Amino acid sequence: MWSRAGLQFFRRASCGAPQAGLLLDVDGVLVRGRSVVPAARRAFKRLQRPNKDFLFPVVFVTNAGSCHREQRANQLSELLHAQVRPEQVVLSYSPLTMMKSLHHKVVLVSGQGPIRDIAHRLGFDKIVTIDDVRKHCPLLDAVAHDPRPAQSQLQTLPKIQGVLLFGEPTHWESHLQIMIDVILTNGSPGSAHLPPGSAPQLPIIVCNPDLLWKSPAPSPRFGHGVFVLCLESVFKRLTGAELQIEALLGKPSLLTYRYAEHLLTSQMTSSARLRTIYAIGDNPLTDVYGANLYDRFLKHNAVTAATASRRVSVATGEAVSMATGGVPEEEEGLVSGADECHSVLVCTGVFDPASPPPPDQWAGLEAELLQPRHTVEDVEEAVELILQREGLE
Amino acid sequence: MWSRAGLQFFRRASCGAPQAGLLLDVDGVLVRGRSVVPAARRAFKRLQRPNKDFLFPVVFVTNAGSCHREQRANQLSELLHAQVRPEQVVLSYSPLTMMKSLHHKVVLVSGQGPIRDIAHRLGFDKIVTIDDVRKHCPLLDAVAHDPRPAQSQLQTLPKIQGVLLFGEPTHWESHLQIMIDVILTNGSPGSAHLPPGSAPQLPIIVCNPDLLWKSPAPSPRFGHGVFVLCLESVFKRLTGAELQIEALLGKPSLLTYRYAEHLLTSQMTSSARLRTIYAIGDNPLTDVYGANLYDRFLKHNAVTAATASRRVSVATGEAVSMATGGVPEEEEGLVSGADECHSVLVCTGVFDPASPPPPDQWAGLEAELLQPRHTVEDVEEAVELILQREGLE
Repeated sequence: MWSRAGLQFFRRASCGAPQAGLLLDVDGVLVRGRSVVPAARRAFKRLQRPNKDFLFPVVFVTNAGSCHREQRANQLSELLHAQVRPEQVVLSYSPLTMMKSLHHKVVLVSGQGPIRDIAHRLGFDKIVTIDDVRKHCPLLDAVAHDPRPAQSQLQTLPKIQGVLLFGEPTHWESHLQIMIDVILTNGSPGSAHLPPGSAPQLPIIVCNPDLLWKSPAPSPRFGHGVFVLCLESVFKRLTGAELQIEALLGKPSLLTYRYAEHLLTSQMTSSARLRTIYAIGDNPLTDVYGANLYDRFLKHNAVTAATASRRVSVATGEAVSMATGGVPEEEEGLVSGADECHSVLVCTGVFDPASPPPPDQWAGLEAELLQPRHTVEDVEEAVELILQREGLE
Repeated sequence: MWSRAGLQFFRRASCGAPQAGLLLDVDGVLVRGRSVVPAARRAFKRLQRPNKDFLFPVVFVTNAGSCHREQRANQLSELLHAQVRPEQVVLSYSPLTMMKSLHHKVVLVSGQGPIRDIAHRLGFDKIVTIDDVRKHCPLLDAVAHDPRPAQSQLQTLPKIQGVLLFGEPTHWESHLQIMIDVILTNGSPGSAHLPPGSAPQLPIIVCNPDLLWKSPAPSPRFGHGVFVLCLESVFKRLTGAELQIEALLGKPSLLTYRYAEHLLTSQMTSSARLRTIYAIGDNPLTDVYGANLYDRFLKHNAVTAATASRRVSVATGEAVSMATGGVPEEEEGLVSGADECHSVLVCTGVFDPASPPPPDQWAGLEAELLQPRHTVEDVEEAVELILQREGLE
């Protein structure tokens, strides 16, 4: 058996095909609102061969989740003057495709965009929207004095068995009220709230827990995490208990990085091996934290499993245990083969070196994992660094 | 000088004119949603003489705040088959009429209904709405992917000097984002957020802190308090600090009861004297708490000032100190003359004897003040009790 030092030497010696892969965050790194970050176009010129092929496997990992992968790939291709395929895009909800035991449960979905269709394509076949509930239980949504009409595609309202939060909705007052009703009635929002603790809580899955994102506005804007924070605060105030969130998907969830690595590997030729993942992002709380968490996972994995197959149950990811009613411990067969994952923080987005976020935003996070391996000005400087480290400059 | 016991005797002996006054909550006591509580019509038959005059001075005290007093008086007249005058109505915002030093500051107002006009009638002359900010700073409100058009009546956006929350708005995502921007920029939401603690926080005045209200829905619905809870939670998460609320108006605020007593007294003949106030409500957290707090105030007042004029500075009310930039300590000249205030809890609204609210909803409240002096089934039983106690049955 090879020693770890010997293996490193062996890997560095086997040159030729790329041994690195890039995970690229989108908002705050490549675009801000609808504008491209100027450094991104320059970075992409460096990253592509004259025939537009990428020098490295590249996957775009974004916590956005209000559109289909194909749309996002087309948008990125246009904005970056590059050829981005849908298989290079991981959206916050993408790992739901693997949670098959939830697919036949009745789920309440929330967010903006074609969420019913997105849920359907992920494999869900019994989908209820907030508007379905509003239509079937018209007394519930009572904050607006002049309520807007609701529409439902359902003949009857089935008992809801789980809640999927794809992204930030509009009309938070309606969403907060109806989600609280669904949770406190154990899925039958047309009936009265049950006494606290009388039934196990429905599983709730949250995609994209980003608190803030960087737009062209002078200060960062609210993301889905602010909506989830409101939901948690209201639940806590009304019941005295903590809202149980069964799974957080999207960065910094481990499962999102494992899925992204899987997509990086599938871009490589069969002889090549992915050694180093560079994860470039603008948000210490999601991009840096997630990359460092994954780095720890890869190294722990390496020490325990040495060079044997690193096939690990998806259910061991920190964010996919579904103990109280969702996903059983499934073996999904994702292979984690890389040695390490470098976090690279850029300063074109949420992170402002002059005013780091106050410690309250770190609640529950390990401070050590918030420190980036590399900090650079923008994505162009990040690409330069990677080219240099990988001996391509 | 009379002893206290002697005074009580003297007052009880001077019969004839009524010595009691009624403060009536509306939602959950008289109406539920748009329907009259059946017991209310019967109660009002008992309360009125054949010529429709009330047996006692009556004031309707509601935490609603999205309409004018006149409208509310007309609605109540129609629903209860009674003659209710605007001077018998206290809405949550009514005490703002006395905070004159704020009237010439630039205030951001939020809520539903004719809030600009309401603010204007209260005495404010520099009014900014959330829509004014959205129009002048179009990058701020970025949660909705398809933003709705904003309208502004202002040529330019002045620097905002205070925030008045009249009641629950719609589009909470826009209101939360823009209020946070206004607060963190010290009134200039078009500029970047200032570092936390670099400027004193703008004064924020909250009307109607009710968390829940009873509608025809099977469980209580969100009130303005839920919106304020979300604002506080988001502010805390983003800054690490507590949001400072300068004044809470509406029940259980002492000032609201003092203003209501003033209106009761003005309904009495000059020879009569108001001795006992009965405050009938459905919500322990506002109606009972507020009435008991006022009872304590009246008794404390009686002990310290004996029978002398009970003229007390408005600024001594627990909810009207405006130390950091709002109202100076004004002498408004309200006279508190009653001996006591009885809290009467009815079971037709929010309060359900079978499932009292969890202790978390009491955060910061004194448990002793949550205990009603009398608990009855409905407002008819409350009126019977009062007639009996006052020797009119």
